[in-house]
Amino acid sequence: MVKKNNTTEKLTIFALGGVGEIGKNMYVVQYDDDIVVIDAGLKFPEEDMLGIDLVIPDISYLTENRDKVRAIIVTHGHEDHIGGLPYVLKHLNVPLYATKLTLGLIENKLREANLLGETKRILIDADSELKLGSTLTATFFRTNHSIPDSVGVAIETPEGNVVHTGDFKFDHTPVNDQFADLQRMAEIGQKGVLALLSDSTNAEKPGFTPSERSVGIVLEDIFRKARQRVVVATFASNVHRIQQVVNAAIATDRKIVVIGRSMVNVVAIASELGYLEIPEGMIIEPEEINRIGADRVAILCTGSQGEPMSALSRMARSTHRKVDILPGDTVIIAATPVPGNEKYVGRTIDALFRLGAEVIYSGSNKGVHVSGHGSQEELKLMLNLMRPKFFIPIHGEYRMLRKHAQLGEGVGIDPNNIFLIDIGDTVEIQNGEARKAGKVPSGNVLIDGLGVGDVGNIVLRDRKLLSQDGILVVVVTLSKQDGRIVSGPDIISRGFVYVRESEGLLDEANRVVTSTLQRLMSENVNEWASLKSGVKDSLGRFLFDQTRRRPMILPIIMEV
Amino acid sequence: MVKKNNTTEKLTIFALGGVGEIGKNMYVVQYDDDIVVIDAGLKFPEEDMLGIDLVIPDISYLTENRDKVRAIIVTHGHEDHIGGLPYVLKHLNVPLYATKLTLGLIENKLREANLLGETKRILIDADSELKLGSTLTATFFRTNHSIPDSVGVAIETPEGNVVHTGDFKFDHTPVNDQFADLQRMAEIGQKGVLALLSDSTNAEKPGFTPSERSVGIVLEDIFRKARQRVVVATFASNVHRIQQVVNAAIATDRKIVVIGRSMVNVVAIASELGYLEIPEGMIIEPEEINRIGADRVAILCTGSQGEPMSALSRMARSTHRKVDILPGDTVIIAATPVPGNEKYVGRTIDALFRLGAEVIYSGSNKGVHVSGHGSQEELKLMLNLMRPKFFIPIHGEYRMLRKHAQLGEGVGIDPNNIFLIDIGDTVEIQNGEARKAGKVPSGNVLIDGLGVGDVGNIVLRDRKLLSQDGILVVVVTLSKQDGRIVSGPDIISRGFVYVRESEGLLDEANRVVTSTLQRLMSENVNEWASLKSGVKDSLGRFLFDQTRRRPMILPIIMEV
Repeated sequence: MVKKNNTTEKLTIFALGGVGEIGKNMYVVQYDDDIVVIDAGLKFPEEDMLGIDLVIPDISYLTENRDKVRAIIVTHGHEDHIGGLPYVLKHLNVPLYATKLTLGLIENKLREANLLGETKRILIDADSELKLGSTLTATFFRTNHSIPDSVGVAIETPEGNVVHTGDFKFDHTPVNDQFADLQRMAEIGQKGVLALLSDSTNAEKPGFTPSERSVGIVLEDIFRKARQRVVVATFASNVHRIQQVVNAAIATDRKIVVIGRSMVNVVAIASELGYLEIPEGMIIEPEEINRIGADRVAILCTGSQGEPMSALSRMARSTHRKVDILPGDTVIIAATPVPGNEKYVGRTIDALFRLGAEVIYSGSNKGVHVSGHGSQEELKLMLNLMRPKFFIPIHGEYRMLRKHAQLGEGVGIDPNNIFLIDIGDTVEIQNGEARKAGKVPSGNVLIDGLGVGDVGNIVLRDRKLLSQDGILVVVVTLSKQDGRIVSGPDIISRGFVYVRESEGLLDEANRVVTSTLQRLMSENVNEWASLKSGVKDSLGRFLFDQTRRRPMILPIIMEV
Repeated sequence: MVKKNNTTEKLTIFALGGVGEIGKNMYVVQYDDDIVVIDAGLKFPEEDMLGIDLVIPDISYLTENRDKVRAIIVTHGHEDHIGGLPYVLKHLNVPLYATKLTLGLIENKLREANLLGETKRILIDADSELKLGSTLTATFFRTNHSIPDSVGVAIETPEGNVVHTGDFKFDHTPVNDQFADLQRMAEIGQKGVLALLSDSTNAEKPGFTPSERSVGIVLEDIFRKARQRVVVATFASNVHRIQQVVNAAIATDRKIVVIGRSMVNVVAIASELGYLEIPEGMIIEPEEINRIGADRVAILCTGSQGEPMSALSRMARSTHRKVDILPGDTVIIAATPVPGNEKYVGRTIDALFRLGAEVIYSGSNKGVHVSGHGSQEELKLMLNLMRPKFFIPIHGEYRMLRKHAQLGEGVGIDPNNIFLIDIGDTVEIQNGEARKAGKVPSGNVLIDGLGVGDVGNIVLRDRKLLSQDGILVVVVTLSKQDGRIVSGPDIISRGFVYVRESEGLLDEANRVVTSTLQRLMSENVNEWASLKSGVKDSLGRFLFDQTRRRPMILPIIMEV
C-alpha cells in the first residue's frame, strides 16, 4: 500500500445517492481496480412520482465494474442506508460488512427477499480492520445516532485516508453508554485525513443537538402524570428511544404492549442481540390489555409519521383490531414529521384528540423528540477532529450541503478544497491534487410493485395527466369502403366529470367528434394518425373551452 | 332589540368552513329571521383532491334561507376569507360590508368574475354601526394582522353580544401605526360578551408572536450587507411587510422592481388606497434593471411558497423572462412554508443556491418572518379582554381548537361553556343557555376549472386510481352472428408501464383476454356486462400477479 510516485493511478470518490437529496445513500471510493461501496439505501418517492413505491440508486457503474467491487460497507441500519440492499445484491453479489445490529436488521430484510443464503455477510465491530482488494484498508469508529451500532469508516488508500462519518451526532450522555469514540476520531485526524465525507442533515441548525437521554426524562414525567394508558409512537429503529420507553414503564410500574409489524420485528431483533434490555414478563400481548388496569399499561407502536396503514393511524381511526383509544388515554408522538408528512401527522393528532385522548407531540412539547443528527457545533467538532485536506459534504439536500461547506470554510478549510457534488459527479484525487472530473451514470430507479425501473418519465407524465383531469376514450368505427361512420362515436370518461350531471356536455362532445371526422374525411384525410390527432385537437379544445380542464383523450378508430 | 322573555326565538351560531381545517372561513350568526355571514373564504385542495383547483364551503343553508341573509361581513382581505366570494355571490346576491383595503381587494376579484356591477358593496370603518335586519347590530374593532385594515366584529343580538375576532395578533409596535383597538375591545368586554369566536391558528405556540417591525430591522440589516441585488419574496397581501421592504430599499438607496401578477396588483391597490407609501420614482420597470448597478436594486416578488409558476420559482429555474439570478445576489424568502409546501420551498432554495445566490430563509434565519396570528399569551389576552360567557374556538385544525379551549379553561371559562364544533354543527343559545343542536348542511364544494361541484368522490377515486397505476383500455370486436372475435383484443395503456420494455407482458395480457372471452362465450355467457367484468377480473388478476399493480381496466366491446 505504498504510494507509487507519478503513477496514472488515482483515487475517485462519488455518490450514487444521498447528495442533493435526503435518502438512498450510496457512496463509492475507488482506487485503481478496487471499489468499496458505502451504504445502499432507498428513498421514499417524491410527490410527483405518482404510484411509485420506492426509489433506489442507479448502480449501473457498479454492475459494469462488478469485478472490482470488493465490499459494501454499511454504516448503520436505517432504511435510507440499507433499504436498497435487496435490489442491489440481486445484481451485485459482493460481500457485505456491518456491525451486529445493522447486520441483524439487514438479514431480516434479505430473508424476506430470499437473498440470505447467497449473500456473504461479515460481522465487524469498531476494532475491525479490513483489507479490501490490493490497495484499500478500512477501519471504523463508533458514533452516536438514533439507532445503536452506528459507525464511521476510514479507508486507507495509497493517496491518503478517506473518512466517511456515517450519520452522527455527539451525545455526551448516550443511552446504554454507547459513547462516540472521540479518541479514535482524534487519532485518525492526527494521522492525517485526505478527504472527509460528512453528514449534512442538520447543517442548517445552529448549536448542539440535545442528548437522547433528555427525551427519557420527559417521557418518564409524562408517564408519571398519566392516569390511564400511555401510548408512545416512535420510529421502530430508534432502539434507544424504545429502551427509554421501557425504562419509563418500569419506573411507573406499567406493562408494555408492542404493536405494529416493524416495531415487533425490531424489538425482537434488538432484544435478541442484546441492544434492548426488557425485564422478563414486562411485555404482554395486546389481548391481555384489558385484564390489567389502564394505569398499568404502556403501548409502544409504529405510526409516528401518520402513515395511513400504521398502528397509530388505525387506533386513531378506531379501526385497529386489538386496541381502542379511550378518553383519558395519553398518546405521545415521539418524533417530528419528516417533511411532506406534516398533514398526515396532523390528521392523526386531530383524530386522537377527537377520541378524547391527550396528545403530546413535538408541536406542543419539543422535549418528546431529539434528532439523531448533529447540529452546526457538532459538525464543526467533527471537522476539527478530522482536519481533512479535502471536504465533501454528503447526506443532504443541496442547501444543507452548502451550509455544511460554509461551516467547513468557517473552521479554516480552503474553499477550493471543498466539493459540492451531485449524484454521479466524481472527485478525482491524484498526487495530492483534487478536481471534479466528469460523471458516472447515476439517477433514480423507480420501484413500482414488482417492477424495478420499468416506470419512467413518460409513464409518470401520463399518471400526472390522468390524475389532474382524468381520461376520455373515444371509440368510433369507420367503414372500410367509404370511410363513413358505422358506429359511435362513443365516449367513455373516467376521472373527468360526474357523467350523470354532465350529459349535455358529453352529448355535445359527441357532436364535436362526429363533425370533425366528417370534415376531415370530406377533405380526404384518411390516415388514422391524422384522424386521431384531429379528434384529439378539436375535442380537447372544446372541453377546455367548456370546462377549463385538459383530460387525456384517447381516440380509438376501428375499421370494418 | 329588547329581548322578549320566554320566546321561541333563539340565537344560532355555526361555521360553514374554518373549523377542523385551515381555510374557507365562513361563520354564520342567526337570530330569528336575521342571518349575518362573516367571511367567505376558499381553501387550497388537500393532497387527495387530485386535479382540484380550489375548495369553497357548501352554502346550501344560505341559499335555502336567502331571504333572511342580511349581510356578508368580511373581516380582512386574505384568500381564506374572501376567496369564496365570487362563487358565493353568484348564488347569493346580498350586501357586502368591508373596510377599505379589504373592499379594494374584493372589488379586484369581483371585476375579474364580472360580478362587480351587481354586488352591493358598503365601505365600513372601525366606527361603523350597522343595523342588520330587525334584530342585529354590528360594530367593529381594529386588530393587528398580516394585512392592514383587519377588524373584529361585535354583533348585538337580543340574547346578548356575539364577538368574532377575525384573524389577529397584538402588535404593540405595528408598521404604519395601525394599532389594535384595546380600548374598544375592553369596552365590549365591559358591556358583556355572550359568545366569543376567536382565532385558534397559533393556539399551539407558547408566548407572544413577535412584532412585524422586528422583520423590518432584519431586512434592513440584510439589505445593508448585500453587495449585489436583493430579491425579497413574500405574500403579496402582506402590505406591512412590503412597506418594510420599501423602507429597507429607501435606507440603502435601492430602486424597487415589482414582479409577479398578484404582487403588482396588491402594490397598485394598496398604494392607491393609501396603505403603502412608496416615494415617487422609487419603482422601476423590470426592463430597467440592468441600467443601474446591482447594489442599487431590490426585487420584490411572489413565490415565497415555492409555487411552481410563481416569479421566484421561475427565476430559480432560470426561466423568468425578465430577471436572472446572478452569483452574489441575495434572496430573502420572508415567509415560512405553509404545511404541505415545504418541499416546493426547499427545491426553490436549492435551485437559488445552485445559481450562486445567497439565500436567507426562515430555516436559516428565523428573523425574516413573523406570523400574523397571536400566540397563546395573546389568545389569553383576548379572552380576558372579552370575558365571554360562551367560547367557541374557530379558525384552526381540531388540535388547535382544542388547545385554544384549554387556554380558555385556563383563564377561567367554565368547560361546559366551551364548544368545539365541526362545520355544520350549530350552537343554539336561548334564555342564556347554550347547547349543541343538530347540523345544517355543510361540506367541501370542489372547483375544478369552470366546474363548481361537478367533481365528487367517484371522480376523485378514479383520478386516484389512474394516478397510481394508470389505465389499460381493451378493445375487442365481436361478431353479431356467432359471437366470434372479429378483431382485437387491442390493448392500449397509459401510465402503466413503458410499452417498449413490456411487450412480452402486453402480449401475454392479450392472450389472457382472448382466452377469457372464448371461455365465457363457449359457456354461452354473452351479455356484455358479464363479458366486460370477466375481462376485467381475469386481466386484473394476471397483471397483479405479474406486476403487483392494479391499473384501471376499461374493456370496450364492439359488435359488427
